[in-house]
Parts: sequence; C-alpha cells; structure tokens
Amino acid sequence: MRKTIFKNEVGNEYRSITDINSLESPKYGDLSDVKKAINEIESVIGLENIKDSSSELLIHSDNSSNFHKPNENERPYIVALPSTIEQVSEIAKICHRYRIPMIPYSGGTSIEGHFIPTRRGICIDVSKMDKILAVHEDDLDVVVQPGIGWMELNEELDQYGLMFGCDPGPGAEIGGMVATSCSGTNASRYGTMKENVISLKVVLADGTIIKTKNRPRKSSNGYNLTGLFVGSEGTLGIIVEATLKLHVKPENEIVAIMNFNHIQEAAKTVTDIFKKGIVVNAVELMDDRQMKCIREMTQDIEGGRQWSDKNLLLFKLGGSPGALKDTVERVKDICHQNNGFNLEIATSTEEKDEIWRTRKTQLWTSIDWAKRIIPNARAWPTDVAVPVSRLPKVIAETVADIEEHGLMTTVVGHVGDGNIHALVIFPPDKLAAAETVVGKMVQRAIANEGTVSGEHGVGIGKRDFLVAELGQATVDTMRSVKLALDPLRLLNPDKIFKIDPFEKRVENC
Amino acid sequence: MRKTIFKNEVGNEYRSITDINSLESPKYGDLSDVKKAINEIESVIGLENIKDSSSELLIHSDNSSNFHKPNENERPYIVALPSTIEQVSEIAKICHRYRIPMIPYSGGTSIEGHFIPTRRGICIDVSKMDKILAVHEDDLDVVVQPGIGWMELNEELDQYGLMFGCDPGPGAEIGGMVATSCSGTNASRYGTMKENVISLKVVLADGTIIKTKNRPRKSSNGYNLTGLFVGSEGTLGIIVEATLKLHVKPENEIVAIMNFNHIQEAAKTVTDIFKKGIVVNAVELMDDRQMKCIREMTQDIEGGRQWSDKNLLLFKLGGSPGALKDTVERVKDICHQNNGFNLEIATSTEEKDEIWRTRKTQLWTSIDWAKRIIPNARAWPTDVAVPVSRLPKVIAETVADIEEHGLMTTVVGHVGDGNIHALVIFPPDKLAAAETVVGKMVQRAIANEGTVSGEHGVGIGKRDFLVAELGQATVDTMRSVKLALDPLRLLNPDKIFKIDPFEKRVENC
Repeated sequence: MRKTIFKNEVGNEYRSITDINSLESPKYGDLSDVKKAINEIESVIGLENIKDSSSELLIHSDNSSNFHKPNENERPYIVALPSTIEQVSEIAKICHRYRIPMIPYSGGTSIEGHFIPTRRGICIDVSKMDKILAVHEDDLDVVVQPGIGWMELNEELDQYGLMFGCDPGPGAEIGGMVATSCSGTNASRYGTMKENVISLKVVLADGTIIKTKNRPRKSSNGYNLTGLFVGSEGTLGIIVEATLKLHVKPENEIVAIMNFNHIQEAAKTVTDIFKKGIVVNAVELMDDRQMKCIREMTQDIEGGRQWSDKNLLLFKLGGSPGALKDTVERVKDICHQNNGFNLEIATSTEEKDEIWRTRKTQLWTSIDWAKRIIPNARAWPTDVAVPVSRLPKVIAETVADIEEHGLMTTVVGHVGDGNIHALVIFPPDKLAAAETVVGKMVQRAIANEGTVSGEHGVGIGKRDFLVAELGQATVDTMRSVKLALDPLRLLNPDKIFKIDPFEKRVENC
Repeated sequence: MRKTIFKNEVGNEYRSITDINSLESPKYGDLSDVKKAINEIESVIGLENIKDSSSELLIHSDNSSNFHKPNENERPYIVALPSTIEQVSEIAKICHRYRIPMIPYSGGTSIEGHFIPTRRGICIDVSKMDKILAVHEDDLDVVVQPGIGWMELNEELDQYGLMFGCDPGPGAEIGGMVATSCSGTNASRYGTMKENVISLKVVLADGTIIKTKNRPRKSSNGYNLTGLFVGSEGTLGIIVEATLKLHVKPENEIVAIMNFNHIQEAAKTVTDIFKKGIVVNAVELMDDRQMKCIREMTQDIEGGRQWSDKNLLLFKLGGSPGALKDTVERVKDICHQNNGFNLEIATSTEEKDEIWRTRKTQLWTSIDWAKRIIPNARAWPTDVAVPVSRLPKVIAETVADIEEHGLMTTVVGHVGDGNIHALVIFPPDKLAAAETVVGKMVQRAIANEGTVSGEHGVGIGKRDFLVAELGQATVDTMRSVKLALDPLRLLNPDKIFKIDPFEKRVENC
C-alpha cells in the first residue's frame, strides 16, 4: 500500500498555514504536453467543440467591463466546450496528467480579471451546459447546469410564480455566479449566492467528481463544502451542477422612489427601516452625482421619465394587501422623518421596469456620460462594503477624496447591505491619481471594519487588498486549502492570492 | 529559504482527495510529552484554570443526551479553561509542539458524541470566554465570545428589541453552535448557523489566530472560511470569537396551533403556505404519538393545557397589524382546506410560552414517558431531513418500520425545513432492532435525496452515514481539507470522518 505524504513543512513544524515564500514555482507542462493534451481533449469532445480563433481566445480572456486587462500573451491555448459532467471530468484528468492550467468560464461578465489566463492553459467554457434539469415546485428549488443565465432561469421560472434570488449584472451565468459569490439588488431581502446555493456538483483538479450535499435546504452533515466552493473563483474546482433555492415571486410588488438632499438622511432612513424590522424586497441608493448623470443622459428621450438630480432611494415593497398598505405607510413615514421628498409610487409593470432598469444599467450610462465630458474617459468600478452605520461617513469621505484628486465619480449602493459602487472616472493620463484614490478607499473600508469586495470578488485585481483586509495569516490559510485540493496549482492560477513567490506578471490596467 | 513540500501523493499522482488507506496512523506525544504540555499550559493559564477531577473529566466527555458514549478510558488528561484568545493560541501551540490532541468544548449539549476524547488529549473549555464584546444596534450584529449561551445572549438583546436567530436545545453555547452548524425551530424563517454567522476568529491547530471576514453582512473577498468553519465540529480550528447577525424581534407575534387527522394533511398545509410565499416565523409538527405522550404526561398538571392527541402544527405568526391579520386569515384558510381543526390562537406571553416550551422540551418528556412504559427504556434521537415534498412519505414509512420492529417512537419536525426527529424508544435488549430501524431510516433519507443530519452534525455516531449519503469522494475531499489545516491530526480526532485507517475504537452505545 502506498502512503500519502502529507506535509506542509517549514523547518520541522507542521503548519496550518502556507507562507508563499515557502513554495517553489508551479511546474506546468511544455508545449509538447499541451499538444498531447489538446489531442486527447479533442477525442473526448470532438473537434467541433474546440475553439482556437484569435477572437474566441480574446473573448475568453477579457471583456469590456474588466478594469484589469490580460497582457497580449495571456490567451488560452484553446477553448473547450464540454456538454456533460463526465466530459469536464475527462478534460480535467487530461490537464492534470499533462499539468496544463484550467480556467473555468461561463458568462464572462466578471470585472476583476477573474478569467485572465495568466499561465495560458485550457479555457473550459460550460456554456453548452445550459439546461434546467429539474424544477421542484413544492420544495422551492431548482437543479441547473452552470451555463444557464440567471435571467433565462427567471424567464423559465415565471410560469411557476417562482424566481431565483440573486440578480447580478445582465449576462451572468450560474457557474460564474457561484464562483464569484455574487449578489445584486435583491440581496438584502433574499441573500447572496452563499445563502441561495443548496448543493453543488464539482469537478476537482484531478478530475474527481463530487456532490457537496443532498437536496434538503438544511443539512449539518460534514464540512460545508458548498460554502467553500461558493466564492472560490474557479481556483478549487469547476462548478458543473447547482441546486438552488427558489423564492415565491412577491405579490403586489410596487416600486417607490424618494429624494433626499443629504446622503446621510437617505442612509439613516434605511437604518431606521431595518431597525423596525420592516421587510423591504429591495432598497437601493443612487447619489446626486449619479442622478445628475442619469438626468442628463435621459432627459431628451421622448416619453421617458424626468429624473430629479437629488440623491435617490429606490424601494421594492410587496406583500398581502394588508401588509403592503402597512409597509408603504411606515416606509413613507420614516422617509419623511428623515426629510425625504418627491415620493413616487410605481405600480404598472412598465413604470416599475423603467425605474429598475435605470438602476441596473447605471454602469454603462455612467461610462457613456463620462465619455461625453472627458475624451477617452476610463472608469474604475469599486465595490466596498461596510457596516451600514458607517456608510454615510464612508460615502462622504470617498466622494470628497475623488474630487480633491480632480477626478469624477458616481455612486450607487446596495444600501441595505452597506455595499457601494463608487465609479472612479478619469482621463487616461490620470491613472496614478485613480490608483491613489482607490488605494485610499481600500484603507477607508478597512478602517471602518469593511470589506474591499462586497460582491465582485478578488480576481487578479484585488489580491493585495485581500491581505490588507484580512491579514497574511488568513490568506495563508486559504492557500493551504488551495494546495490541498489542487496541489499542482492548475485551477485558475494566480487568482484571489498568489500561488507563486516568483510570479513576474506585469499588471495591465 | 526552506521549501514547503506539498504532497498528497498516491503513486505519482497529486490527487485532490485523500483516501484513508493512504495514510499512516497519527503519532501523538507520549505521557512524558503530556506532562510537559500540562506544565506549560499551567504556566499560561494558572493552576486554578486546570481541572482534572474525575467528575470534571467525565462531564467533558459525555452528557445525558449523548447516544454514543465514551468508553471508560476516553477522558481528557485535563480540562483547560482559558480566558483569552491569546491563551487559547498558546495552548494550541503547546499541544502542537508536543503533539497532544485538543478537544474544543463549550455548552456540551451536542448528542452525537462530538466531544468524546477518543485519543484523550486536552479539553479546551471556553466557558470563561462568555462575554458580549459589542452590540451594534444600527448594523443588527453582535460580537461575542464562544462561551456565551444563546439564551443568555437573547436575554441581553431583549433591551434592544433584538434577537439571535438560532434556537437549538437549551444550554447550547455559541462556540459549539458554530461548530455543529445547529439550528432549531426558527430556522425556516431566520436560517441556520450557516446563514447567521458573519465572521469568526479561529485558533488553528498550530496556534495561528485568524479572522475569517470583516463585519459587513456581505463580502466576496476570498474563500468563505467562515462557512468552512461553521459545521467543522472542532476538527479544523477552535472558535474563539464570532460576529453574528441579529434580527428585530417580531412584533405582534402570536402562536397558533391546529390539529390534523393525517400527517399528510399537516405536511401539505405547510407546502401550500410556502408555495404562496406566506412568511411564518416558525412552523413545527408534532405527530399523534408525540401528542399522546404529551397529553399523558401533562394531563394531571393543575391549570395546565389539555392537549389533544392528534397530529399538531404549531405556528409563530407576526408582523404589522395589517400583515398579521392577512397572515392569520390565509394560514387558517389553508389549514381548513387541508382538513385542519381545533384552531387555537395564543396571544398572551404565558400561553405562548407554555405551548412553545412544550415543543422545546419534548425530548425529555418523551424519555420520561418511555420509562413509564418500558423499564430502563433507551431513546435514540434521529435527525433526518428531506425535501419537504417527501416528508409525509418518509414519516409514514419510518413510523411503520419502527413499530413493525416492536419499538416505540415519537416524531417532531421542523417541518418547514423538511427536518424530523423520530425518537426510537426501545428496551435495552432491543438495541439490535433499534440499529436496524435507524439504518433503514438512513437509507430511506438517502433514497429521498435527503440528509442523515439536518442539524445535529456527525460527531462520532454518524461517520458511516456521511459516506453513504455523499459518497467516498466527497468525504475524501473533506479529509484533504482537514489534513491541510491540521496535518498532525490534533483537533478533535476521529470526528466527522476517519483520520486513521487503523482506528480500533469500540463503539459504545
């Protein structure tokens, strides 16, 4: 019988944590290994499911919202399009045998350089695995493949009066949503991906297929591997199936909006609502800069809404008739106590959709607006979250600092979660200033017990910030877990934290 | 520079999973190491914080609800009572240096033999670390030490109108609640520990202190270590501080109860309520056997409630006046549509408390009742959870099978979570029959896509069931994680899964 040698040995100590400097560089297969691997992968999925045109390779390395860009040589050797779990497992076994990096890919909408193939490798694109495998109406759950988008899923669920809870950017697919632990505007009511994934099937680095849990909503049977893979950004395994919680679509839902002269008043409104235990289906904030942008970009659209340029709170409220009546009254009272004004209530589908769509597309609206004002404007999306009570202070200091550096910004917030996206807008020659204000934003978040990433993840862009936020020992613990499940460091290398002390990658913003 | 050797090597393959048969037995310190370790621990926490009387050693190895018992030699060498995180870390460093097993201990109420010191070692009892460190009213969170009980925490939170969401058995403390990923009657509304822990401080096997997250409710910054430690049963680290979500105490809460002739009708009532999106604060089931037991045990109490012996649903309903009115009406209608009868609504604190206390103490009531009927009756608590739609079938088959084997049972259920506790009651000479029915219950849960442990955890009692439920590869993945964070296998050995292929422990039921 062969013995496993299990060592994480620095000197004679068996440590729980792994110092990056105790590692050697990973050793990957050479080009002849790559060629053999591709040949074997072809025999598994067929030539028609292998893409290697330069446009496909680029699409699978970058997107237009990525602030952190791949370097020119950072392209996968090929894109593989498996159709089954078994095929994914076979591809992983081949890559494992030849020591070829693997980069899982689904919707490709993440914005922290999550799928930059820093060591080249094989891009495993699960977009052909886009089926709903089972809707369990009575149990309020659904079993899906990783390549289905959340919007397509919701379209299908509509006939059952059900919905999925997380609503990140349009285009996102379940595999990547699991991997980045995303959320969206619904999170304060329905939770993030962490709270909405019941169980996963995962292909590990060596091709092993595991199921993390069975289908009941509640289980304390063994380690919470589901929770470990959610947010692991493709570095621990490839998500190949997910069982997700569903929610009953809220009845009688209305959208209410209200203006505030001061952001502090808007934030206190939200705190007051939560402290009273009032359940709102969503609550979002857009600051006066964001509203000025939206006003200017929409005022000439015929028949469109005329937006005020004051700070805005947007609510989704719903429930039984009696509950809704009470909720609307109480939210209105608290808004007024905090000097809110211009209350509007939208009840028609068209009106509700127009308001919420304006919120959901603000990133692109802001970028277009910036380009009107600054030629070739660049935009750096940020994603700080702090305890809700710290939010007004953090927003005020952030905006002041950005403007003091001569840059522009718009701010939106998942205010119920304490999560804000301040978009740092700057001319290309002011990248250094942008880096300074983002760095200070990070320090400010940490000084306020906050996080640098509320929902976007770490990718390649925020690795240093992760250490700043949680400390070296915590990141070294993550590295121990990574090396346990992927000792050859094949899965999505260089993401979340360093795996190579001698990494020489040049950052490309 | 020293190099970390990271290998999980079977033959020449670097695997993601760890086959138990690839391991050697762990090597622990001998008695002279133990003596040195105890001396050093004494210098850290003082002699007054070391207990070694036989009664203390017994209490820290067993409790009256444990079905799986320690063998006679299974006692810790000492019980250490640290007061600070740094002391816990120092103790861990000492144990790590001398290779002495460590068993974390808080409330000691778990029932699967979670803290049996199978390899002796040092029991680290955190009961002196029982403070609330900060209540953040505006952020709805609290920072606590691990030795505080959830009931004491709720008493303190009462002045703020706040509560903690999980309500396991009386006496449970936060450290153990985190470790076992427990829940209780509130889970279908407020979630289990998995959903209620924001962040942890943990002492790892080698004494490293880490913080898993900062304080915002939402973060996607790096691996979800919080989620990994929740439910790790003391095998990955010692929980030394927790930041927990709080909930606003529900307003206008009433308790409603209703009888059903058939358990199917009760279960369908719950499914129908959830499918309509009606929010109930809790819904519990007690079957007719349980109700017969309660009726018989309480009917002679003067002034006490006269219970019917029919299947019973118990609800907690609350909300604003308009919402509560609607909810009561709708729940009542659905109950009646499913042939419910004997609706009673309790609004006074005394009445509500009497009803809910009867539910919360049913385990002991059932054991006392069993002893009236069967001399020296034994009781085996079980904890199956299945998708809600499977519940009526699973309950019916379970009860029939237990009775066909000539044993008795009572059934209660966290029916909103599909989680039932069937108590298998038997005379001591029918242990074999009890083992048979429990084994079949496990198979039945798995056949219905269920879990063997809804909320009690695995401990030493359910290790084989874990493999049956999730498969060998999943458990071998958990073992890889364990060995990465605790390569010397010091933390709570032998729990959840085997760590020693040559383990020779004799099961003691």
